[in-house]
Amino acid sequence: VAAIQRVAILGLGLIGGSLGMALKRSGFASEVAGWDAGWETRPASRAVCLERGAVDEAADSPEAAVAGADLVVLAVPVDAVIPLLDRVAPHLEPYAVVTDVGSTKERIVREAEARIAGRFVGGHPMAGSERSGIEAAAADLFEGAPWITCPTNETGRKALGLVERMAAAVGAAPRPCPPGLHDDVAAALSHLPHVLAFGLADTAAARVSGTLRTLAAGSFRDGTRVAQSDPALWTSILVDNAEPVMESLDQFLSWATVLRRAIAAADRESVHRLLAQAHESRAEFETP
Amino acid sequence: VAAIQRVAILGLGLIGGSLGMALKRSGFASEVAGWDAGWETRPASRAVCLERGAVDEAADSPEAAVAGADLVVLAVPVDAVIPLLDRVAPHLEPYAVVTDVGSTKERIVREAEARIAGRFVGGHPMAGSERSGIEAAAADLFEGAPWITCPTNETGRKALGLVERMAAAVGAAPRPCPPGLHDDVAAALSHLPHVLAFGLADTAAARVSGTLRTLAAGSFRDGTRVAQSDPALWTSILVDNAEPVMESLDQFLSWATVLRRAIAAADRESVHRLLAQAHESRAEFETP
Repeated sequence: VAAIQRVAILGLGLIGGSLGMALKRSGFASEVAGWDAGWETRPASRAVCLERGAVDEAADSPEAAVAGADLVVLAVPVDAVIPLLDRVAPHLEPYAVVTDVGSTKERIVREAEARIAGRFVGGHPMAGSERSGIEAAAADLFEGAPWITCPTNETGRKALGLVERMAAAVGAAPRPCPPGLHDDVAAALSHLPHVLAFGLADTAAARVSGTLRTLAAGSFRDGTRVAQSDPALWTSILVDNAEPVMESLDQFLSWATVLRRAIAAADRESVHRLLAQAHESRAEFETP
Repeated sequence: VAAIQRVAILGLGLIGGSLGMALKRSGFASEVAGWDAGWETRPASRAVCLERGAVDEAADSPEAAVAGADLVVLAVPVDAVIPLLDRVAPHLEPYAVVTDVGSTKERIVREAEARIAGRFVGGHPMAGSERSGIEAAAADLFEGAPWITCPTNETGRKALGLVERMAAAVGAAPRPCPPGLHDDVAAALSHLPHVLAFGLADTAAARVSGTLRTLAAGSFRDGTRVAQSDPALWTSILVDNAEPVMESLDQFLSWATVLRRAIAAADRESVHRLLAQAHESRAEFETP
C-alpha cells in the first residue's frame, strides 16, 4: 500500500527524473505527477519522461501538477526554486508538504519558510552526475547516498517525516543537517571540487594544444570529470553559496601558495610534509 | 620468436611490475630479469614478483640483472634514475639500450646522455594508478596508453626503435616528444591534477570533520583520487619539474582568482562565462 496518494515533481532533469523513476518503482506514492519548464520548447523531452517511466502523469502546468498532491518536490536549479514556489503556492493543497533538491540550502530554506513555514523541508540528495537531463536519469541514482534534510525550528514534524520516508523509499539515507552547516560542508566537499575541475580544464586547454591533448590520462580525466557539468547550473550554485565557496576556495589557495613556495625553494621536506598530510587526510574520507 | 634475448627491469613497483608482466605475456624478450631495491628489506615482495609473473629471474643485484641484457629499463622514482644508472653503467653490455619510465624528462635525459649518449632513450608511459607497488601491477596497464619517448639529436636510431617496439609489445602507442615539451605537457595534464587533488583533500579535511565527512560524493571522490598516490614519489616529481609545475599552477591560480572575484561581486555573467569556457575546453580532450 502506497504511503501517500500523489507526489508532484516539478523539474524532470537528472535529479527530478531519477526521483520519479525511483519513486514509481518503490510504490511510495499511488501517482507520480510531473511537470518540466522545458517541455514547452522541447516537447520530445516530455515524451521521454513518460517513456522512461519518470512520471505517471505529465501535467500541463506546475499548478495542475500540484493539485491534489501530498508532497511537492521542487527539482529545479537553485535560483528557480523560490520563483517556482511563488508560482505554485496559491495552488497547493492545505496539507501539502514541499521540499527541494538544491545544492544550496540556507537562502532557499529561509525564503521558502517566509512563504510556507512549517510545510517546507529543504533537501539535498548527495548524488549526481556530470550529465544532466532526463536522458541521464536513473532509478538507482540515490541508492546508498545520503539525502540531507534541513529542518529548522519552524519545520513541522510530519513534514520532515514525509520527506525522510520519501528519501528512504528511493534507497537514500536521510540525514538532518542545519542549512548553514550544509552550505559549508557542500562548499568544501562538492562546490570546491567543481571549481577545481573547471579551472583544471581551462588551464590544461590553455597550456596544451593540438594532438598533445590526447596525452591526457587518468588524473586529468578524473580531475576534470565534473567540468562536464552544466555551467548555468553551477553558476547559480556558486553565486548562491558565495561566502562558503569563497572560504573553501581561499583555504585551498593558501595551501597551494604554501606548496608553490616549497617547490620554488626546492624544499623537499616541506613538499613531502604537505603531500603526506594531504594523503592522510584523504584516507579519512569514505567515498561511494 | 622473441625480438630480443634479455630485458632487465630495475624497480618492480606499479610500472616496472606491470611492464614485466606485459613483456612476459608478449614474448618480446626471451628472458625478463628484474631487481628491486626493496627486496632486501621486504623479501616477500621478491616472492610476489615471481608469483605474479613480473620476472623470470629475480636478480640479486642491479649489476647481475643487466648482465647480458639488450634492454635495461630504469623503473624507479625520478630522483633515483641517475644514481641507479651510475651504479649499473660499468656493467652494461656494449650493445645495451637503456630507457626509463619517469614522469619528468628534461633533466633525466640530459644527465643520462652525459653518461651514455646515444644508448639512452627517455620514456614515460602515460598510464598509472593512485596505487603503487607490485601488488597493484597489471599486465594490461599500458593497453591503449600513449608511451612517450624523448629522442634527442644524440639518440641512436636503433635505440629509439627498440624502445618503441617494447612499448608497442605491451599494447601502448609509442609517441616521440622533445623532453622539454614533455615536461610542460606533463605538468599541465598530470602534475597539476595531482597538486589539486592533494590540496582538495587537505582543504576538505580542514573544513569538514567527523561524520560529516561521509557526505563526500562523486566529485570529491574523483577530485581526490590521486591524492592517494605515494607522497614521496610525487615530492620528487614536483621538485624535479619545478618550473613547468609552477607555470601551470600559476595559470590555474590566476583563473581561480578571477573566478573568485566574479563570485564575490555576484557577477553571474562573468562566472557563467568562465565556467562555460572551461566546460568547452574539457570537451576538447579525449581521455581514456
